[in-house]
Amino acid sequence: MRVGKEDFQSIWPDESDPAVIKVIDQRKLPFTFEIKDLRSVEDVYEAIENMTVRGAPLIGAAAAFGLYLALLEATPQTNLRDHLLNASRYLISCRPTAVNLSWAVNHSLEKLLNNLHSPSVAELALQTALDICETEKEYCKKIGEHGVKVLEELARMKNGAPVNILTHCNAGWLATIDYGTATAPVYLAHDKGIPLHVWVDETRPRNQGSRLTAWELGQNGIRHSLITDNTGGYLMQKKMVDVVMVGSDRTTSTGDVANKIGTYLKALAAHDNNIPFYVLFPSTTFDFSKRDGIGEIEIEERDPEEVTSISGFSEGTIKSVTICPENTAAANYGFDITPARLITGLITERGICRADENEIKKLFSDKLI
Amino acid sequence: MRVGKEDFQSIWPDESDPAVIKVIDQRKLPFTFEIKDLRSVEDVYEAIENMTVRGAPLIGAAAAFGLYLALLEATPQTNLRDHLLNASRYLISCRPTAVNLSWAVNHSLEKLLNNLHSPSVAELALQTALDICETEKEYCKKIGEHGVKVLEELARMKNGAPVNILTHCNAGWLATIDYGTATAPVYLAHDKGIPLHVWVDETRPRNQGSRLTAWELGQNGIRHSLITDNTGGYLMQKKMVDVVMVGSDRTTSTGDVANKIGTYLKALAAHDNNIPFYVLFPSTTFDFSKRDGIGEIEIEERDPEEVTSISGFSEGTIKSVTICPENTAAANYGFDITPARLITGLITERGICRADENEIKKLFSDKLI
Repeated sequence: MRVGKEDFQSIWPDESDPAVIKVIDQRKLPFTFEIKDLRSVEDVYEAIENMTVRGAPLIGAAAAFGLYLALLEATPQTNLRDHLLNASRYLISCRPTAVNLSWAVNHSLEKLLNNLHSPSVAELALQTALDICETEKEYCKKIGEHGVKVLEELARMKNGAPVNILTHCNAGWLATIDYGTATAPVYLAHDKGIPLHVWVDETRPRNQGSRLTAWELGQNGIRHSLITDNTGGYLMQKKMVDVVMVGSDRTTSTGDVANKIGTYLKALAAHDNNIPFYVLFPSTTFDFSKRDGIGEIEIEERDPEEVTSISGFSEGTIKSVTICPENTAAANYGFDITPARLITGLITERGICRADENEIKKLFSDKLI
Repeated sequence: MRVGKEDFQSIWPDESDPAVIKVIDQRKLPFTFEIKDLRSVEDVYEAIENMTVRGAPLIGAAAAFGLYLALLEATPQTNLRDHLLNASRYLISCRPTAVNLSWAVNHSLEKLLNNLHSPSVAELALQTALDICETEKEYCKKIGEHGVKVLEELARMKNGAPVNILTHCNAGWLATIDYGTATAPVYLAHDKGIPLHVWVDETRPRNQGSRLTAWELGQNGIRHSLITDNTGGYLMQKKMVDVVMVGSDRTTSTGDVANKIGTYLKALAAHDNNIPFYVLFPSTTFDFSKRDGIGEIEIEERDPEEVTSISGFSEGTIKSVTICPENTAAANYGFDITPARLITGLITERGICRADENEIKKLFSDKLI
């Protein structure tokens, strides 16, 4: 997508140095656009952990590049199998909730273990990571094509008045490789000339909404307004939201969705006000081994300091300010569960389906365990 | 309530100078405890407008002191009736949603207009403001006595495990004259030795939760944890909340409640998880002239800059940081409506009742229009 006048992806191999993977440092957006080099599996781990890269599809792809970098580090003495298994465990341990991370690592690992003794195993690792990127891009593009129908229908019903979309966190191109999940239909609708306006939840504690979603929508010419996470319910009560579109970090076989903390509250408000609530994600975000989101999905707990302070921009630099009395205890859960019953539809690369076990089974019968 | 080792109210007349009203500057908490002098009706207007003082009962009391200060400014040439009517309109125009503001001004005004030609009309204005303070304190104390029964019952059911209360914004003693509304039962239960823990919503955009509620609970020895506004739903899904207690800025005759933006989202989550949701307020917060909260209550819109930036503490000073790209549009609605159907009970100085027109009518038959 556009950054100024250039097109970017969120991750790519350096053209001039095959031992370097390039990423946009998302911790510094929107204040500085900085590209960071990842040169080792440790660099990749750190980038995922400190959220230089984030978003379920992107951390999956990054981890696949991590296995490639791990192989580059191997010497003739390295036991490649152990080395890869260790690197895989290490990468998967980095963040627990988004299933794409373990999916991408296991998908790559399987290929690599089957070709361990090939002299071009590192090349295979690179190609696998690139294929994951291409697949995720293709999936996001298709999510856009299916999702845009929802926006077109709303635009018809509104007779040319702008369609108001509410989104939470960043399920934009920065969270994926390109296009985004929740934003893919938005960008496509904009290209088709459908008038749109996006309500952007700031998404505390890390403000991915105000920092990333507002930035990428702005760079791509989409009209939007920032709101606090408290505001969406009121807007829905006043019919100022036509549709809610969010991403997913893990979707169970029954259609329960783990997504950024606060998503569930917006789903409740949408349900209470008869506003359609769609979850958009590539099929790599399904976890068919789990049924009950609330009971079975591990929710990441993060540093309480993300809650007791906020980082932003002041006098030319990124600064952190404390927002509570010194030594205040805080809890920081990263995700919540939106139960299937609150979801109007799931939009994946294969189309739109209800968040219902049977419908999901029908659409993904080839992927079930 | 306690501030360090001293007891404070949120507003009081200066003992040494009868032309000064003292307030705690709530914009600077928790970083600095600063007392501010109000010397004119303009000072009072400004203090309410810029939120030096805030909270429905407190801004009502402050406005009553404002009429007193207006009378002190009068000269023998002043047309007192016009002067008071102008001051009243001026004060009421300051903030639209909390009904206590217009209630307190109209209550004082009526008394003063009936005694316009008394040489001690200014004294009467002072006495009326002090009476409002005493009444509000008494009401809050009684809200505590009724509300503590809910906490005692939960403590019994939990067999001595701490009762987890979730609260939103600041409905503490700082929002009232003393004790608070939502916090009154908490302080009383704590005095009675009931083990408690409070989840404090930070309450963007102005962070009254992280700045004021966390501070006053800390000063009074109540165990609490700060959470983002996104978190309460997850905590309720995981049964980590036993009861939600919030305040109100305006309650209709049918039991709809206007309160700080985001309250509605917590009410939805409580309802969805069978967790009791109580609204605590003095009867001065009723607006019996309104029935339908969503349709009839005016919701204040505030400066978008409160959304695009956050103020906190850094390197010894209060600093504001920008949290989004430059020139991002933002919307800033101050309140939302919690419909009566989502409320387990209303707790006022007269006891606990269902949020139901007939029950409210029965309890407040003498106050109906």
